[in-house]
Amino acid sequence: MNDMDSKEQIIKRSIEAKEIYLPHISADPVIFGFDQNELKVLLAKMNYRKQWLLPGGYVQKDEDLDDAISRILESRTGLKNIFLEEFGVFGKKDRSEYYFEDFDDSLFQKQRFISVGYYALYKSSAISPVADEMSEICEWVYIKNLAEIELAMDHREIIEKALLTLREKISYKPIGYNLLPEKFTLQELQKLYEALLGKTLNRGNFYRKIKNLGILKKLEEQRRGGAHKSPDLYSFDRENYAKALENGLSNW
Amino acid sequence: MNDMDSKEQIIKRSIEAKEIYLPHISADPVIFGFDQNELKVLLAKMNYRKQWLLPGGYVQKDEDLDDAISRILESRTGLKNIFLEEFGVFGKKDRSEYYFEDFDDSLFQKQRFISVGYYALYKSSAISPVADEMSEICEWVYIKNLAEIELAMDHREIIEKALLTLREKISYKPIGYNLLPEKFTLQELQKLYEALLGKTLNRGNFYRKIKNLGILKKLEEQRRGGAHKSPDLYSFDRENYAKALENGLSNW
Repeated sequence: MNDMDSKEQIIKRSIEAKEIYLPHISADPVIFGFDQNELKVLLAKMNYRKQWLLPGGYVQKDEDLDDAISRILESRTGLKNIFLEEFGVFGKKDRSEYYFEDFDDSLFQKQRFISVGYYALYKSSAISPVADEMSEICEWVYIKNLAEIELAMDHREIIEKALLTLREKISYKPIGYNLLPEKFTLQELQKLYEALLGKTLNRGNFYRKIKNLGILKKLEEQRRGGAHKSPDLYSFDRENYAKALENGLSNW
Repeated sequence: MNDMDSKEQIIKRSIEAKEIYLPHISADPVIFGFDQNELKVLLAKMNYRKQWLLPGGYVQKDEDLDDAISRILESRTGLKNIFLEEFGVFGKKDRSEYYFEDFDDSLFQKQRFISVGYYALYKSSAISPVADEMSEICEWVYIKNLAEIELAMDHREIIEKALLTLREKISYKPIGYNLLPEKFTLQELQKLYEALLGKTLNRGNFYRKIKNLGILKKLEEQRRGGAHKSPDLYSFDRENYAKALENGLSNW
């Protein structure tokens, strides 16, 4: 799509948007996946300006905020009932004004938006990203490659805040249920923790601590096929995992 | 103030508010204090309906969200540069409509508001609550007494979410710096943790764990005057406390 067409598309959307949505409020989901021992995030490349954005949206006038974020996410991923957690509100007065500077001030999208950030963790295989009409493509981008792409508005800051929140979270909540396959090795779980924390962990310490949480079930199976000794497979103990999620891992 | 006068006051404020503030967005600060070994929260009793509310406010059209919450809080407490942390966004479509049901739909305050919740912890002695023109009184209410007062809109839910966030937070962040006097006993610190967690803790375990964090400095002084052996006084080690705040207490 050329730039003229994408501009017309934006103006057309503005007219509809004024009817449907609350002004000044938007929602941005940061969906993390885990693949090849690396974290990635779901992004859309816009037709206009060809910059990348989180696959966000607006809140309908007569819709709960929670329902809005579910609707936005389902339209982009096909997933229903995803558990999302709010992690930050982005409310600088000039956070998005530059993006639509070529448009008239009456454009719905050009007004000031305060955006609510939500994150979720999902197996990338469970998600089929769908580009909406405003975007060329919606796809996973590895966190390590974010430096190389052009992210619009303050969306780099939003992703960084989501990551920071996740890092804090894993010190008191279990993590992995939605990110790992049903059966996994302790090494795979360690790689996930390392990817989230952004640092390598001592294997012995990690194995001891993660086992002490009581959220793992050792299976009567090994992962076959490697050059080394076949490692044991584990799965999460659903009940204990849910308990740990509710009560936290705090030992005060 | 009688109900007729308070209604007129609300209509007058609506006219000004439409000029000054963004529609649909509000901010609610949940300020916790610690006194007599109990947690308390700062609330305002409104002239209209005589119900209690968090001392919240709106966001000016040309003001960063962070600046708005600072301004709102300064006007109620006299405190500048309070560190506040966002903990939740409250966006049910009907969360506040009942409160202003006796007014015309054109009332600024009656529109749908999505409210951003912030919490802060403060020594109650540092705060001089000020009732604004809309409220009879602004004062501390003990958490244990909240069940006895009438809280308007969803403000009970907002306070509960703030408490839950605090409870999770103390498993990976130090707490107490703004809540305790400069010199305190380990027993006083334990009482604070117990008030926040809503449960009693084993003294031996607590003393051992809190000392292991490395955030305390034992002073060459004791608390005099009690019937028992004079307990040692402590203060926070500023540098280590700041480090723990930044890096978290996680031991992954």
